[in-house]
Amino acid sequence: MTSKTANSIIRFRTANCVAVLDREHAGTTAHDVLGFGGALPVVASMRDGLALGADTVLIGLAPMGGRMPADWHAWLLEAVQAGCDVWNGLHVFLNDDPALAEAARISGAVLHDLRRPPADLTIASGKARELHAFVVLTVGTDCNVGKMTGQLQLVDDLKAQGIRTRFVATGQTGIMIEGWGIAVDAVVADFVAGAAERLTLEGAEGAEVVLVEGQGSINHPGYSGVTLGLLHGSCPSAMILCHQATRTHIGDYRDNAGLKIPPLGDYVRLYELLGNAVHPTRVIAISLNTYDLNEVEAHEACAAATAATGLPCTDPVRFGPAVLTRAVQEAQALWQSRRNARD
Amino acid sequence: MTSKTANSIIRFRTANCVAVLDREHAGTTAHDVLGFGGALPVVASMRDGLALGADTVLIGLAPMGGRMPADWHAWLLEAVQAGCDVWNGLHVFLNDDPALAEAARISGAVLHDLRRPPADLTIASGKARELHAFVVLTVGTDCNVGKMTGQLQLVDDLKAQGIRTRFVATGQTGIMIEGWGIAVDAVVADFVAGAAERLTLEGAEGAEVVLVEGQGSINHPGYSGVTLGLLHGSCPSAMILCHQATRTHIGDYRDNAGLKIPPLGDYVRLYELLGNAVHPTRVIAISLNTYDLNEVEAHEACAAATAATGLPCTDPVRFGPAVLTRAVQEAQALWQSRRNARD
Repeated sequence: MTSKTANSIIRFRTANCVAVLDREHAGTTAHDVLGFGGALPVVASMRDGLALGADTVLIGLAPMGGRMPADWHAWLLEAVQAGCDVWNGLHVFLNDDPALAEAARISGAVLHDLRRPPADLTIASGKARELHAFVVLTVGTDCNVGKMTGQLQLVDDLKAQGIRTRFVATGQTGIMIEGWGIAVDAVVADFVAGAAERLTLEGAEGAEVVLVEGQGSINHPGYSGVTLGLLHGSCPSAMILCHQATRTHIGDYRDNAGLKIPPLGDYVRLYELLGNAVHPTRVIAISLNTYDLNEVEAHEACAAATAATGLPCTDPVRFGPAVLTRAVQEAQALWQSRRNARD
Repeated sequence: MTSKTANSIIRFRTANCVAVLDREHAGTTAHDVLGFGGALPVVASMRDGLALGADTVLIGLAPMGGRMPADWHAWLLEAVQAGCDVWNGLHVFLNDDPALAEAARISGAVLHDLRRPPADLTIASGKARELHAFVVLTVGTDCNVGKMTGQLQLVDDLKAQGIRTRFVATGQTGIMIEGWGIAVDAVVADFVAGAAERLTLEGAEGAEVVLVEGQGSINHPGYSGVTLGLLHGSCPSAMILCHQATRTHIGDYRDNAGLKIPPLGDYVRLYELLGNAVHPTRVIAISLNTYDLNEVEAHEACAAATAATGLPCTDPVRFGPAVLTRAVQEAQALWQSRRNARD
């Protein structure tokens, strides 16, 4: 339950959950383990989950490479035979598993393979450059630093300010939370920017601000291509740079490659340089994940990020998203006045 | 026959061709239309091609998005029914077409879907950073500027110098020419760098120099993600920047986006900045495509590129690859001496 997907569903969709299946922590609650999620019980088996009334299994794991642990097949089959739908964000598709597909056919359960891309994707056309909505993309210093979490805090705050705001999910967790989107890391590489463009156009319908969920990092040895495709396909007018304050190395590569995370200012310049190659854009704020710092350290980390970049910074989970909300509002107002002057 | 794939096969594998199927130019020869390819006849129908002894159809078209023109199905079926194998580099797979698959089953023809990725790809691990071979990647200012063509000229020249050199194909045309490789633009986006890494490791077996075929461009709105994944997965120690001298705008986006091609020096800085985020690398030479210039203009264009970047420059097709060969040899010698000093 310490995986990103499980965490985010427990955080943002607590009311939709009846139990967490995690043999290691069985008998505790979500709050005991994570510090959020309230009294949501942690159970040891699918049977215990079914007894609590589960009608859907959400696969909360997002392992590197997206394969399924071998010992999951048995309890997933048990769930599907009991009529449970499954929301699956792995690169492996459950509908392609004969035993699971057959069990679903018999029980009437639906297997949602969230990472299965639409069949009609295309190369990006550049249409996202001409939107009347203000597009904000989160970009990061690494994977799993809080790009989606920060933005989900921000979307409600912008709506509360009366701004018609839409969150666009580009990964399996965001899709589970929002109910729509495309996992851009699972599309054919030629179509990453095209998928990002399509999502951004759809998100912009009736919206003033579109928050596009970022993925990976521009210097991540494994995922940088997805990051850049997303940047060039969604054509954001503003970016929010996300970082986890205590992280010193690119996450998944700490052991075999030793890639240090460069200073935040380097990321700002790099993302702006690359983004501007296709569409005018700038980094407008820093979203800092300070979960493993104390209150004083967290404030210091935000102040240090601002000193290093000249940009406003907050931890939107810990301190609320007001700093980011203001940055988006100001940037949007400036962008709008320039557009008005041009038209 | 003006498509990149057809061109390259006619240029580098003339002896394997019996005819070019192109209704528009039927009755002429390859040399009449392209200025190379000799007396290779251009025919109007599959029947004419079969009469000349064709036993394989190579689909020479690589349209944006990789779909097949609708009116191709009939003559492809005719070819497969006649027992012709098909080499297909489109995103659409012929084995997934029931009529073609059934016809192939009956006639014994083999349908090669070159862009079908291996099933066991993974996230990049960073292993290409530790190779004992010197890896050279071509990078470009746009698609279709001569990245593969320049490198194919270079590989034979390096071999002639006694350097064990391997060309690594990353696109459908290169795969057709070399007989192995992975079309990295067709793999799941998460695995682009992983596919590049796997190819580079395989190419490095027994080789002193590995020339990795580049794709797209770092500022191409549609394909930049593939370009960056390839750069970070293959971990080149040197890059050759490829440009078509008269090109002013990013090719496929001229009309709807108007993206100008920035100065060559900007590309050198951008590719070095991004490449060095994962592995030490530098641009060592410029490969210029001057096909639509006269001799004097071509020399001037090369001199201008050298003046702008401080890097050696040639058109390897027009003037031969010697300038690039020397740049690779010198860079490799320097790299080797630094490694020896380190070990």
